[in-house]
Amino acid sequence: MLLTMKDKGEMKMSEMGITVKKSENFSEWYTQVVLKSAMADYAPIKGCMVFREHSYAIWEKIQEILNKKIKKKGHKNVYFPMFIPESFLKKEAEHFEGFIPEVAWITVGGNSKLEERLAVRPTSETIMYAMYAKWIRSWRDLPIKLNQWCNIVRWETKATKLFLRTREFLWQEGHTAHATKEEANKEVMEILNIYKDLVENYLAIPVLVGTKTENEKFAGALYTTALEALMPDGKVLQMGTSHNLGQNFSKVFDIKFIGEDEKEHYVWQTSWGVTTRMIGAIVMVHSDDRGLVLPPKIAPVQAVIIPIPYKNVDKESILRKAREIFEKLQKNGVLVVFDERPEYTPGWKFNEWELKGVPIRIEIGPRDIKQKQVTLVRRDTSERLAVKEEKVVDAVAKMLEEVQNNLFNRAKKFLEDHITTVKTYDEFKENLRKKGGFIRACWCSSPTCEEKIKEETGATIRLILSEKEEPFSRCVHCGGEGKKVVYFGRAY
Amino acid sequence: MLLTMKDKGEMKMSEMGITVKKSENFSEWYTQVVLKSAMADYAPIKGCMVFREHSYAIWEKIQEILNKKIKKKGHKNVYFPMFIPESFLKKEAEHFEGFIPEVAWITVGGNSKLEERLAVRPTSETIMYAMYAKWIRSWRDLPIKLNQWCNIVRWETKATKLFLRTREFLWQEGHTAHATKEEANKEVMEILNIYKDLVENYLAIPVLVGTKTENEKFAGALYTTALEALMPDGKVLQMGTSHNLGQNFSKVFDIKFIGEDEKEHYVWQTSWGVTTRMIGAIVMVHSDDRGLVLPPKIAPVQAVIIPIPYKNVDKESILRKAREIFEKLQKNGVLVVFDERPEYTPGWKFNEWELKGVPIRIEIGPRDIKQKQVTLVRRDTSERLAVKEEKVVDAVAKMLEEVQNNLFNRAKKFLEDHITTVKTYDEFKENLRKKGGFIRACWCSSPTCEEKIKEETGATIRLILSEKEEPFSRCVHCGGEGKKVVYFGRAY
Repeated sequence: MLLTMKDKGEMKMSEMGITVKKSENFSEWYTQVVLKSAMADYAPIKGCMVFREHSYAIWEKIQEILNKKIKKKGHKNVYFPMFIPESFLKKEAEHFEGFIPEVAWITVGGNSKLEERLAVRPTSETIMYAMYAKWIRSWRDLPIKLNQWCNIVRWETKATKLFLRTREFLWQEGHTAHATKEEANKEVMEILNIYKDLVENYLAIPVLVGTKTENEKFAGALYTTALEALMPDGKVLQMGTSHNLGQNFSKVFDIKFIGEDEKEHYVWQTSWGVTTRMIGAIVMVHSDDRGLVLPPKIAPVQAVIIPIPYKNVDKESILRKAREIFEKLQKNGVLVVFDERPEYTPGWKFNEWELKGVPIRIEIGPRDIKQKQVTLVRRDTSERLAVKEEKVVDAVAKMLEEVQNNLFNRAKKFLEDHITTVKTYDEFKENLRKKGGFIRACWCSSPTCEEKIKEETGATIRLILSEKEEPFSRCVHCGGEGKKVVYFGRAY
Repeated sequence: MLLTMKDKGEMKMSEMGITVKKSENFSEWYTQVVLKSAMADYAPIKGCMVFREHSYAIWEKIQEILNKKIKKKGHKNVYFPMFIPESFLKKEAEHFEGFIPEVAWITVGGNSKLEERLAVRPTSETIMYAMYAKWIRSWRDLPIKLNQWCNIVRWETKATKLFLRTREFLWQEGHTAHATKEEANKEVMEILNIYKDLVENYLAIPVLVGTKTENEKFAGALYTTALEALMPDGKVLQMGTSHNLGQNFSKVFDIKFIGEDEKEHYVWQTSWGVTTRMIGAIVMVHSDDRGLVLPPKIAPVQAVIIPIPYKNVDKESILRKAREIFEKLQKNGVLVVFDERPEYTPGWKFNEWELKGVPIRIEIGPRDIKQKQVTLVRRDTSERLAVKEEKVVDAVAKMLEEVQNNLFNRAKKFLEDHITTVKTYDEFKENLRKKGGFIRACWCSSPTCEEKIKEETGATIRLILSEKEEPFSRCVHCGGEGKKVVYFGRAY
């Protein structure tokens, strides 16, 4: 297809494409895909990013999916202030220690220095629970199940990585209060399952789910459960966490209720969240050397129709047919765009929509018109399929499902191929270095061993999948009794 | 109905209700309605509030309505950083001067003092337009039509007023860039009309729309258009603004494009927003001495079903019938709650749902069962209507529409009754003092007159409705030539 540069303002096709291979320079490839697909951009403030329309639309999809699931479970959305007085953060000692290194502080308001500096929320436990203490009186007020979608600030000092490591990001944080520990346990697991469903069945990213060690748990929690996904470079990305906070916060914030037994009790609490870093995972796991590849269920555009008018022959009938197909698909709930911009060539459009990861391209050219068909092209496999006009709705629906399944299955196979069971520290180090992924090994349960492994290899215990997994060797590091089967990995 | 206090944890009915009258102490009444309906609460940080589930659900409704309208017009949602370097804010001089007194500053990140302090966004023109300058190259990139939903900080020093004056609030801000002034003008008006539709047809609040004077326009704008609503205490509340920014920002941020004429041009820009203060207006305009009254189109709960089991007679059949009606309404798209909590009496429930402003209460008692009917009770007028079971869906739909219309018409009549035309300054002052509302008068167009009136009476020019309105007297203040017909009012 011929490309004409009409004037200086048009981007050259050569500027558009990804110039490195995913397999050769993963990190640079990732950044190029994010920038060139116009998912995001660096902001002119150190450590910050702009969520452009293409990534924010995915975030809106995630919000829609998750809101539906949690509202059905009785959760309500709210909004708390983002300012947290330093004295609040300090109340729960572990929590404070965990977050203090990364807090941004407001010290001046208008023309006045503040008496007490205010943290920009790094997480909202403390501000929310100060209110819970006020609102909760009796067992009738329980459970409280609130959630908020908001911005979060953590003053990262390491290099900025779009979606994965920025000083401000977006998330949802759920915060519940219950009468009993059992209810809190149940809540933690229900949320973990909701997250697993979101990540696997919508984002098409398989995950391991389990519990964190004491070292790795959330600062202030009784225990933390999490979802961990494997990236193509062999590193592990945490996709979400669900914590049982026990009574740690209710005791310091004095959140008590009068039970049906007419006695006072402290509530049991949970908190849980997923962030915009999930969008980074989508990019890394599914995309390729031509740009983004999006799972249909969270793609803002699922199909794009590109008319191919050959030298003005039959142009009108092609555009008419394209519009007809567009309306038919739209009516049937497909998120479809009809790209009829006359100022761009079909070739330019092919490249742009491929870069943007649209699952299906629908081409309509003179031959298609003649044969009463359209041509579907799959983004994930580049397969072409000629489909009779009258069958286009079913064919598109079927292909979207196939793309969704293929992306998940491909990633699932990669994950399974990268869980390696080892018995010795040599095997451990060799596999970590050569292959990456999850290393399944036995551990003596000592935090010292855990820390030494981290120091020596950079790998941390990502999860204990199940307490029931039977140890199969001595501790991979110290040779002491192997008490738990755990999953190590180098994490983002 | 008898109320039993089962234990200390239950709120007493006497604590629940509003204890002052709207007509006697408007300000205290407002605060009580907001707090006791659990719409919001004061946060334990000076000047800040918590948006509880009942108000946040209204905000989500507003988001849904507005997103649908602006997305249809081609706007896309995005998210920009909330940090704005001081040097950015300073670029547009008027803009900086307008916002600097109310900025909260981040000066410390982690353990380090920042080299340049960062404003927490009081509005996002400067950070967004720094990126527009990077993204826009040619006429093909225009228009850019972006919008974001986010939190905003303005360091208020006046007394906190829930929803109306807090240091942090929520809003949407739209920011567009166009090739020509005409397109920007058109955008400003289209948005103004979308806002008018939202406020009048959903929030049921009639507004005057028009243009602001130079004194009252947005800091940095070419001109500002706005919607102004009248509150029951005679004061005026700005409900939304839509600005034509001209080329003021594009010139300082160097946002240029190559036109079809192959020459460089600065873009023309607009920005526009509505905030959570609209929720405060809903409370003030519609509610009454028994609590909140919500327009059905934005009520999170449109109808509540309350079973009335008399001394356990026939309890099962009442609950069964109530559930049946509940499912039928839900299936037909009514936002309905079935309040079957056994721990509360019907009387307690009546009070609670009235406080929360639910448009329709549906009572089902033994007599209703016998007569195969249910009883609908309108929140706005307290009218009761017995409806045959099989007609309940239609009856509820009709009643919701009637409530919506009644609320709007009542407010519209109040607004019309409170627009007073005056020719002399004595009339002006007397009407402002005794009656409040909008004072329609002629003005010489001098900012000095405008400022003096403000100093002397507290009233500002809220709007010029139309440049075509024919002056009917000399300037109401100086007696000079009356050049414009303007609408004065004391504003929130």
